[in-house]
Amino acid sequence: MRNIVLRIRFDGTAYHGWQRQKNALTVQQVMEDTAQIICGQDLVSMTGCSRTDAFVHANDYYCNFKTDCKIPHNRLSAAFNSLLPRDIAVLEGFDAKDDFSTRFNCIGKEYVYKILNTRVHDPFMQNRAWHIPVQLDMEALKEGAKYFVGRHDFSSFMAIGSSIKTTVRNVKYVHVENINHHISICVYADGFLYNMVRIICGTLVYVAKGKIACQDIEGIIASCNRENAGPTAPPQGLYLNKVDYDFGGIKIV
Amino acid sequence: MRNIVLRIRFDGTAYHGWQRQKNALTVQQVMEDTAQIICGQDLVSMTGCSRTDAFVHANDYYCNFKTDCKIPHNRLSAAFNSLLPRDIAVLEGFDAKDDFSTRFNCIGKEYVYKILNTRVHDPFMQNRAWHIPVQLDMEALKEGAKYFVGRHDFSSFMAIGSSIKTTVRNVKYVHVENINHHISICVYADGFLYNMVRIICGTLVYVAKGKIACQDIEGIIASCNRENAGPTAPPQGLYLNKVDYDFGGIKIV
Repeated sequence: MRNIVLRIRFDGTAYHGWQRQKNALTVQQVMEDTAQIICGQDLVSMTGCSRTDAFVHANDYYCNFKTDCKIPHNRLSAAFNSLLPRDIAVLEGFDAKDDFSTRFNCIGKEYVYKILNTRVHDPFMQNRAWHIPVQLDMEALKEGAKYFVGRHDFSSFMAIGSSIKTTVRNVKYVHVENINHHISICVYADGFLYNMVRIICGTLVYVAKGKIACQDIEGIIASCNRENAGPTAPPQGLYLNKVDYDFGGIKIV
Repeated sequence: MRNIVLRIRFDGTAYHGWQRQKNALTVQQVMEDTAQIICGQDLVSMTGCSRTDAFVHANDYYCNFKTDCKIPHNRLSAAFNSLLPRDIAVLEGFDAKDDFSTRFNCIGKEYVYKILNTRVHDPFMQNRAWHIPVQLDMEALKEGAKYFVGRHDFSSFMAIGSSIKTTVRNVKYVHVENINHHISICVYADGFLYNMVRIICGTLVYVAKGKIACQDIEGIIASCNRENAGPTAPPQGLYLNKVDYDFGGIKIV
């Protein structure tokens, strides 16, 4: 059987995240339903590189599935895009080795969180950024971002109720940029806890509003207590931006 | 009575243009309904700087209306935005002289037309650009754009059936830019005929596809015959981008 990998992009506004749910539309369901038609296969089961929350977007997302279909890898994108709704696009298709998993072979991801910091909302950023009308202290935000870099126990930045083996993650960088009041917070890590980027960004916004001091972040991390961190930033500002693999495993076989 | 001018921005995807219609939702209707609530006035009648076609956007749009309401001009934006749907925003409010009209005192406008020239569509440009998957000849497009500059009878670039006093317009510039396959065609003129920008852009796309030669544009203009020009580009790529007034008339009184 072939192990097909698809690189996709989606506007998450209409979806309750990646993972299939009984009573809500998800990206996985749309992708699997489309693959079933294209591959003429009764059941396609896809693996995705990440669960994503409802209304979260992806500039870059990888999923894979097993199939006997004969479509050449360089025709997969056109085949899928001819059937997919316009808020999902297949950018590329690959054939990968049998045991390659877009979920388990991922070695790092970059998320970008977008904030629109203008007095008036922007109709073109609706569902695509967190609109914050009060002026944010960019110097504090940039300073606060530095504290998250490194290997830490991030349990203060994990949604309560998550169960997971280890809460230690390695954050490689947190880049903050402000172009004409469009603020981007780029976070790269080897892996992320549930809601981790959104809680980091909510905390940084509290820092930028003067509700949390930069130098308190170290203590908030050390406390391993979700209640000490800031709020969870809303989902519509979050984009999965880049997914890294050991690409030895993804190459065309 | 006050003559209030509002500078607004809207994502036109959900609207059948500016002008009120019996059986379709328009921006004018939403703005007038909102003004009636805010001003506590039974009937508000707004003038807009331009009819816009269904699904066309505006980065900048001006409208004005007469009212006795007491809201200071610098509170108008917040008042409107508290009630407006998220795809329309009031950026600023002014008080203008009695006889100032956002329609008749306009001295020039810039439209931008956006084309996404990539093999695969982009979920984030859905309803916001014309997706053209075949590669366009940018040199030809830029060369062709030059022919439209100047004072011409643009009746070849007007939707058939339009009635108007004169079809002569003065195009100040047509700027073409390509940033990472996102093509922008910026057209500035003292005024525009019905569908003029969309037909100019449809014609330039024909030039960029090699279906019309650059040097034929002069003849197409001279023919004053709509049938000789290219197709009307779809509405979702068009944005009213800038509106110029003799601002002596718009200043706070």
